[in-house]
Amino acid sequence: MKTYQPITEEIIHQLKTIVGANYVKTDKDLLVTYETDYETDPRLFHLPEAAVFPGSAEEIAAIVKLANTCHFPITVRSGGTSLADGAIPVCGGLVLLMERLDKIIELNEEGLYMTVEAGVRTVDLQRLAHASGLLYAGDPSSAESCLIGGNLATNAGGLKAVRYGVTRHQVYSLEVVTPLGEIVEVGATLKKCTTGYSLEQLIIGSEGTLGIITKVTVKLTPLPPHRFDVLAIYTDPKKALHMVPSLLKAGIDPTSVEYMDNSYVRGCADYCQYSDMPHYEDGVYVIITVETFREDDLDAKMETVCTVCENSGAVEVLEADDRVWNMRRNCQTSVERISKIFLTDDVVVPVHKIADTIEAIMEIGEKYPFEVKINAHIGDGNLHIVLCKMDMDDATWEKAVEEFHQQVYAYAYRAGGRLAGEHGIGAKKLRYMEQFTPQGELWLMKMIKYAFDPNYILNPGKLFII
Amino acid sequence: MKTYQPITEEIIHQLKTIVGANYVKTDKDLLVTYETDYETDPRLFHLPEAAVFPGSAEEIAAIVKLANTCHFPITVRSGGTSLADGAIPVCGGLVLLMERLDKIIELNEEGLYMTVEAGVRTVDLQRLAHASGLLYAGDPSSAESCLIGGNLATNAGGLKAVRYGVTRHQVYSLEVVTPLGEIVEVGATLKKCTTGYSLEQLIIGSEGTLGIITKVTVKLTPLPPHRFDVLAIYTDPKKALHMVPSLLKAGIDPTSVEYMDNSYVRGCADYCQYSDMPHYEDGVYVIITVETFREDDLDAKMETVCTVCENSGAVEVLEADDRVWNMRRNCQTSVERISKIFLTDDVVVPVHKIADTIEAIMEIGEKYPFEVKINAHIGDGNLHIVLCKMDMDDATWEKAVEEFHQQVYAYAYRAGGRLAGEHGIGAKKLRYMEQFTPQGELWLMKMIKYAFDPNYILNPGKLFII
Repeated sequence: MKTYQPITEEIIHQLKTIVGANYVKTDKDLLVTYETDYETDPRLFHLPEAAVFPGSAEEIAAIVKLANTCHFPITVRSGGTSLADGAIPVCGGLVLLMERLDKIIELNEEGLYMTVEAGVRTVDLQRLAHASGLLYAGDPSSAESCLIGGNLATNAGGLKAVRYGVTRHQVYSLEVVTPLGEIVEVGATLKKCTTGYSLEQLIIGSEGTLGIITKVTVKLTPLPPHRFDVLAIYTDPKKALHMVPSLLKAGIDPTSVEYMDNSYVRGCADYCQYSDMPHYEDGVYVIITVETFREDDLDAKMETVCTVCENSGAVEVLEADDRVWNMRRNCQTSVERISKIFLTDDVVVPVHKIADTIEAIMEIGEKYPFEVKINAHIGDGNLHIVLCKMDMDDATWEKAVEEFHQQVYAYAYRAGGRLAGEHGIGAKKLRYMEQFTPQGELWLMKMIKYAFDPNYILNPGKLFII
Repeated sequence: MKTYQPITEEIIHQLKTIVGANYVKTDKDLLVTYETDYETDPRLFHLPEAAVFPGSAEEIAAIVKLANTCHFPITVRSGGTSLADGAIPVCGGLVLLMERLDKIIELNEEGLYMTVEAGVRTVDLQRLAHASGLLYAGDPSSAESCLIGGNLATNAGGLKAVRYGVTRHQVYSLEVVTPLGEIVEVGATLKKCTTGYSLEQLIIGSEGTLGIITKVTVKLTPLPPHRFDVLAIYTDPKKALHMVPSLLKAGIDPTSVEYMDNSYVRGCADYCQYSDMPHYEDGVYVIITVETFREDDLDAKMETVCTVCENSGAVEVLEADDRVWNMRRNCQTSVERISKIFLTDDVVVPVHKIADTIEAIMEIGEKYPFEVKINAHIGDGNLHIVLCKMDMDDATWEKAVEEFHQQVYAYAYRAGGRLAGEHGIGAKKLRYMEQFTPQGELWLMKMIKYAFDPNYILNPGKLFII
């Protein structure tokens, strides 16, 4: 790990000159807000030396230049909803808050795009599009709290990825402050382009290590007016999971295909106080959403979905009401209630290997003293495995988690999978990234990092070891 | 421009040791085949010093290592269908032919992907998918001759991009020989992934400057069984072009939206010897393809398309038969018949600006002594402007072309467009790339090139000046 210079009084003075005295905070009472994100284990928290609230790309560029001169690190904090310790300033230095960059710059209904500053909340962007009869298809579960810049930095996934893809598929262009403090616009509002390297695709998903995203132009699409949500209940999880390839090949273009194992069904029903959920005791839930532009198309597709589910062994196929979605949305919260410290994993595998992968993970989990809970975007092959520490002592917990992860990640890579489908690597999986990524691939990434950020100013301690 | 060492007898000997004597060619009679691609102006041709036909990624890696040691340049030639001088070895050295890497490795119907070597013809990949009831959605006009590796290198577009996106959207992963001769696999067969930088997206569209693509895993999707093709004829080109945003917002998800100006309508009808094409004298043609999974959905969408076209001022709306598509496919050939030397341009603009852009281009063209012909993937904002030299003298032609390009490119950039939608920059637009790309963006590209290829071995003289 690199070492950096501390943030001195002189640096604080210069920061205040750049953004104004009100927008530089060094009060410890406030800084503790930024020592963690969605991380629950205090041993992984890290206090920043200062927090800065810039108001423009120009101010950010000046701060980044100062960081290069004085050699202190910068960690950008977007919504602070990272599940991979992505917003924790693990090397100290500055935390940069993006919330003042909150302007909606343009919504173009004819051109089907929207340009916003990076600090706009994802849900606000979604709502604004919706009000014009359009859809912004990025939809991470944290949409209410997360900011669009963070969605780009982590290539956020979410609930609509089966049909629309992930955040990288929603972006036309972005403005970025490079690690050397230049403001550069990359990408363009074009359906097609082959005019040099796709820098926007490189920067999307680079977790703040290649630049600070300050402005974004995203794609909008026509909003399908009709929608149905099916809840298919299975008592055999294998049958539920083996259904996915048939569903994806049925020509119905589903928006979401979500999975909750029985542990979640029970946990979330309890948390939401729904006393009469069907197959509470023995069911796994698959929620399938289909959206269409015409009503008769909806009817036909609903029929296809029901047939696929029934043929694959669903014991009940119902309309998924608000309660089911509410349970799905509260997966994380229902866990918080039972264990103060817990780990959320984010392994992703090829879609047709998800059944075998979940089976293998449950088998691995049986060897350890924690309950393994799985919910998954099964239409994307993306699993969220939650391990609850409960009242386990630190040493037992750490040893068990490490052994479990080693086996799960090795299995996932053998299946063609990767460490993270949508949460990113952050600081949390950095050493697994080093372990599981083939050397040639890792070397190319590090060469790019060095080319962009020769002083390793931006978000050090994340993604890989520098 | 860098200078390189010549290919000596000793190097030829070593190349023969790597690939076998039969696969190294230095006979000038054969080398002339590789002095051009789809370039028609002999002054831009350049003879390679040798042509090599490797049989594997390992052989390519050995050749690349030799090139680094002996400092000679390598230009990869895929199908040789570049319209941007992309396959011309402008700095001499070696041309690498990919045709022996022609194996289909796996077609996985459950996982919806296909893995092939880079030298497989695009049309073969399409046909193989089709035979399994699946679709490979990449569909450049040159599909019969081009190879899939070249499609990735140039991020090829084509006829299905409105619905399915361009080549970069069809790719899961690729194997690449890096400019230093390492074999690296980047990307994965995953619907979602945020595990480090998206190297596959960086390499796609990098025109052979960041690596030699040797193997590719592409996405397959269910093949919609129903299709209709509408020919909407307009006598006012503006009305035809202004129709596009309404069409894209109508929720019909068209596969193609193609445009032929009247000059092409006449030229292609003549070339194909179709004597009774409607509105031969005054019509511009818009061809709209929609594909669906159900027949009643097809009927409903056809009705919507016809309504949009009629409301926007089409004078006739017909079913587009094979003749219309045959004319569209023969745009390029119809030009070859009338002018031995001609220029095909590939400007792209935001979709909602295509009407104004075409009007502006026609106005600019009126000042010059060549006929300006335009066909366009208007659903993508991608224009192909053809200028015919006919019997113009070199000096007049060059001056006129240069002036025309300066004005057209400046207009396109002001409209938020770029130099190339699908043909790439190659050697042809290199100096325009330098002129029109903002310095910060160009600098990042050059830094990446230098990080990957410090000896500038791969495809020099393309994309930008090194």
